[in-house]
Amino acid sequence: MTAKTIKSNAAVAWEVGKPLSMEVVDVMPPQAGEVRIKIIASGVCHTDAFTLSGEDPEGIFPCILGHEGGGIVESVGEGVTSVSVGDHVIPLYTPECGECKFCLSGKTNLCQKIRETQGKGLMPDGTSRFYKDGEPIFHYMGCSTFSEYTVLPEISLAKVNPEAPLKEVCLLGCGVTTGMGAVLNTAKVEVGATVAIFGLGGIGLSAIIGATMAGASRIIAIDINESKFELARKLGATDCINPKNFDQPIAQLVTEMTDGGVDYSFECIGNVDVMRSALECCHKGWGESIVIGVAGAGKEISTRPFQLVTGRVWKGSAFGGVKGRSELPKIVERYLKGAFQLDDFITHTMPLEDINQAFDLMHQGKSIRSVIHF
Amino acid sequence: MTAKTIKSNAAVAWEVGKPLSMEVVDVMPPQAGEVRIKIIASGVCHTDAFTLSGEDPEGIFPCILGHEGGGIVESVGEGVTSVSVGDHVIPLYTPECGECKFCLSGKTNLCQKIRETQGKGLMPDGTSRFYKDGEPIFHYMGCSTFSEYTVLPEISLAKVNPEAPLKEVCLLGCGVTTGMGAVLNTAKVEVGATVAIFGLGGIGLSAIIGATMAGASRIIAIDINESKFELARKLGATDCINPKNFDQPIAQLVTEMTDGGVDYSFECIGNVDVMRSALECCHKGWGESIVIGVAGAGKEISTRPFQLVTGRVWKGSAFGGVKGRSELPKIVERYLKGAFQLDDFITHTMPLEDINQAFDLMHQGKSIRSVIHF
Repeated sequence: MTAKTIKSNAAVAWEVGKPLSMEVVDVMPPQAGEVRIKIIASGVCHTDAFTLSGEDPEGIFPCILGHEGGGIVESVGEGVTSVSVGDHVIPLYTPECGECKFCLSGKTNLCQKIRETQGKGLMPDGTSRFYKDGEPIFHYMGCSTFSEYTVLPEISLAKVNPEAPLKEVCLLGCGVTTGMGAVLNTAKVEVGATVAIFGLGGIGLSAIIGATMAGASRIIAIDINESKFELARKLGATDCINPKNFDQPIAQLVTEMTDGGVDYSFECIGNVDVMRSALECCHKGWGESIVIGVAGAGKEISTRPFQLVTGRVWKGSAFGGVKGRSELPKIVERYLKGAFQLDDFITHTMPLEDINQAFDLMHQGKSIRSVIHF
Repeated sequence: MTAKTIKSNAAVAWEVGKPLSMEVVDVMPPQAGEVRIKIIASGVCHTDAFTLSGEDPEGIFPCILGHEGGGIVESVGEGVTSVSVGDHVIPLYTPECGECKFCLSGKTNLCQKIRETQGKGLMPDGTSRFYKDGEPIFHYMGCSTFSEYTVLPEISLAKVNPEAPLKEVCLLGCGVTTGMGAVLNTAKVEVGATVAIFGLGGIGLSAIIGATMAGASRIIAIDINESKFELARKLGATDCINPKNFDQPIAQLVTEMTDGGVDYSFECIGNVDVMRSALECCHKGWGESIVIGVAGAGKEISTRPFQLVTGRVWKGSAFGGVKGRSELPKIVERYLKGAFQLDDFITHTMPLEDINQAFDLMHQGKSIRSVIHF
């Protein structure tokens, strides 16, 4: 029983800066080691907007965006053993092959097995599975979840408990795991620690959840959009600050508020100036700042090296340091047991044909996450 | 039996950029919580030259430089209990009070108890113990070891095994502990790790010793002065590289040599461009770069945040992360048991009156350490 090419509704990004276009595309059968899935839901993330804007130096067009999805296996290619038709899966933009130097190191989740082709918008064999009128359309972040059907390598799928609602846990495919994981996995925030979180989008709010789960004693939430503060407080923020309401620089303010600085800070925006403030509001001797946000092409971070020599640590986190296939299913289990909520994040839902509204809401700062229901 | 003011031969730095001047100064008795010591030997470190040059924004003149010494307690002030007359001690520019937030954190060696007065060239009560013709001369880094006699707070003295030759273990008061500790304490280099060390002065060479002690599998030593390579190899460097002999940037070269980058790198110069190279030659996913060198006033480090988001860590180390009173005596014991050698570092010895030669040899790149014998 060999899979055939199928027709799929998809939102295609034909070129930089233009609204997505609803198209019916051909989705080829999964090849060896690949899996075709039917997408049930997909969050719309700032990174999709970042690539669409043209600021992402690695953006390739035309492509099908989307990387925060949940779906059900429709068919599998030759040699696929870890998932079967009907399994519930979350696509992973960071795969986990278990074989490469990175996976074997045990020190990182940044599997490099298919990085080169994924970075070119292609499957591991160097071709695309999406076609429109015979012309290929590129994959995006190895996921392309803004399509009714998509194809991924087997190593890029986390098989999750089918009891988990895909319309919610799709958010674990990017933002929520990224923010929560940066706190719990990358920084390993301890009970009683003080934390500052810069930027209260989906990632920053998820970082608050992580800090609350970790038992942080003080969680300082920072944004210039005060409409985010109510939810931030609900999730556990102890202080909400709009830097525009103060004369002194934000790093100085946070340092004063915390008798010398926070134990951990998180930059959840992608602004290199904020990254510097996040580092410099850390406590001398031990404070650690974690960069999560993705900065624009060519942007650089700077500081005086004295900041490091006096004990601050500057690090980063991608997908929350979470190993997708081995660890993400466990996060889904924790969700099912009530360790954290996701519904607060989903401010809007809509069908695929209204996806451009999701981008508009995001640009207007009106949404946390819009989730597309297929 | 109260101590009296005594006359002491000292090398005074009257002003920026001028040779040190041999003077007989008055050294006041130790006050409460203070100790007067007779210096037996002192290394001459780049940081002394850095301050003398005027590049150090915290330099205060006139002062008595020197911070890498070994001495014997001559007299103690009221309430001093941890050292007695005749004890062998190493002065600490980073004290260990055991009581401040920093000491109690267990996370850092950067005791802040007397930072403010020490930064002003004064004893904790806000006055100096050095006078010349009735005018005060400032202390330096809380040590001022370029004087036959000096006064330090009790919390700034490590009591060491009297069997240890002070003319050698004085080097543990700064450079050797700084380099070795950055590898063993701050980075915690593991058996089999790959390491790159930028700059082969006393600190860089000590970092090589640390990496050898840690069991690193590859130790890449980098300097533009190839005369350092012989000793680097003797201490355990597996590769010695002069960046000027290669067309590609050093970060790229090291990355190529090590199949993706080193596990740990150490910047032992104080050059912000080298600090960037040291970070960028680290392995994606887990490489850590430790800044040890002290950069000039106003200098800043920069990199693309992508370097951090993809798993590299940027940190710093001061005095090798070593807690002076509790840990330095143990390092002296390890030295006495033969865990490492110090004689290779001592390329020149001289009496105090020839101290300006030590600075000349340093500037000419001809010495590793000149040690002053009192």
